[in-house]
Amino acid sequence: MKLTIAYDGHDFHGWQRQHPPGKPPLRTVQDTVQFAVQRTIRQPVSVVGASRTDARVHAYGQVAAFSTIPPVSEEEPDELRVPLDRLPQAVNRWLPDDVAILDAAIVPDDFDPIKQAQSKTYQYTIHNCLTPPVFDRHRVLHFWQDLNVDHMAHAARYIVGTHDFASFANTHHGRDSTIRTVFACSVTRMTGQPERVIVEVSGSGFLYHMVRIISGTLVEVGRGRWEPEHVISILEARNRRAAGPTLAPEGLCLCRIEY
Amino acid sequence: MKLTIAYDGHDFHGWQRQHPPGKPPLRTVQDTVQFAVQRTIRQPVSVVGASRTDARVHAYGQVAAFSTIPPVSEEEPDELRVPLDRLPQAVNRWLPDDVAILDAAIVPDDFDPIKQAQSKTYQYTIHNCLTPPVFDRHRVLHFWQDLNVDHMAHAARYIVGTHDFASFANTHHGRDSTIRTVFACSVTRMTGQPERVIVEVSGSGFLYHMVRIISGTLVEVGRGRWEPEHVISILEARNRRAAGPTLAPEGLCLCRIEY
Repeated sequence: MKLTIAYDGHDFHGWQRQHPPGKPPLRTVQDTVQFAVQRTIRQPVSVVGASRTDARVHAYGQVAAFSTIPPVSEEEPDELRVPLDRLPQAVNRWLPDDVAILDAAIVPDDFDPIKQAQSKTYQYTIHNCLTPPVFDRHRVLHFWQDLNVDHMAHAARYIVGTHDFASFANTHHGRDSTIRTVFACSVTRMTGQPERVIVEVSGSGFLYHMVRIISGTLVEVGRGRWEPEHVISILEARNRRAAGPTLAPEGLCLCRIEY
Repeated sequence: MKLTIAYDGHDFHGWQRQHPPGKPPLRTVQDTVQFAVQRTIRQPVSVVGASRTDARVHAYGQVAAFSTIPPVSEEEPDELRVPLDRLPQAVNRWLPDDVAILDAAIVPDDFDPIKQAQSKTYQYTIHNCLTPPVFDRHRVLHFWQDLNVDHMAHAARYIVGTHDFASFANTHHGRDSTIRTVFACSVTRMTGQPERVIVEVSGSGFLYHMVRIISGTLVEVGRGRWEPEHVISILEARNRRAAGPTLAPEGLCLCRIEY
């Protein structure tokens, strides 16, 4: 089974299960969803997510998968204990109000939500005006200095492509290679809400904190510290210290994953 | 001085100061704003709000006023200790992140934010689909039964005008007269977000819970319990039990007050 999941990351310690020894388990999306699925279909399952989002990072297109015994098929969906089209609502009844299943679908038995992901899209939202963002303050970064979005969009074009993104990864990323492919990277002001600047990045996969460092680097360009072309030398440096800061997690949202 | 204020009502016990005897004062918007103004201009003031919004009700156009000694004028704004155009940011520095001053203006010494209000506009937002509203769950009412918005809009037209709104006031409203004038009342689905149904009501003033009872009555029409014309007999009944339920406070937002 493949689930599409939305969550407000503010009160979660990220997606990935965290059971520190000798302490109570931390509240994570993975544990929360797994518990709700188990209560719904009344069998133990292991829910595996496509992206390990950090604490306070949001999602409206996280993908997760689990297997039932025996496997569910379009012809034999009995193992779900509810009709397939009602599974999201049935699981949602066991979920707290900051996470919801948006969709459930039957996938082949060998479906791997991590390895088979073709493209992931993240958005980083900056509230770019003096007045603080009262209503969605946990979903945006408040940055009051004026941002030159044309310069940021220009700089974003240098991010696109297959590069060594070592400058855009925090250490302890735990990956052998720092080469990744970014399919698209754009910076725009939201239609009808020009104080909102959205950095959108799509890629085959991302290094630890990569989208937040890309956004932090583009903000340095937007506020005039660097010219757009400086991104080229940041990429060439292959050194985390060459790039801009890691922006706060609350501005980040995992929008969609394509298979 | 006249302030325009936005707040997320979720963690406030409403606008109005509440200092129960023998207990710590409750967290209210009035106390919070008054404290921040006093810290900014360094003199004791009394901040008076135009509308006493209830606990968990939001605002992005609350109006409040306070007086300084000596009075501030366009020529002599020294008593503010900051230039007038920077007063909102200066006060915001003393405010928590769920309330913000949007605007500050000098008004005549006899300005009364309550008595001189010509029109107040409230919106009630209903999340009308099966999937729960994860991100702004504290700002909307989740109602999953299908709503007929055409019927609701038709019923809303009977609300407009000068009527005895006794059926639409909860007891203990503490007002002598239950006659009020509603200038406009509309029900629409949000453009680009059809699962959001917005009830917007403008009037000279409202009775206790009046907008939430109007919205609850229109929902009864929308889900098919009553025909739109039934609103006429509810008004005529002058009896709270004739109308629909008082909807939850979190869907309500005070949008603007005109003078």
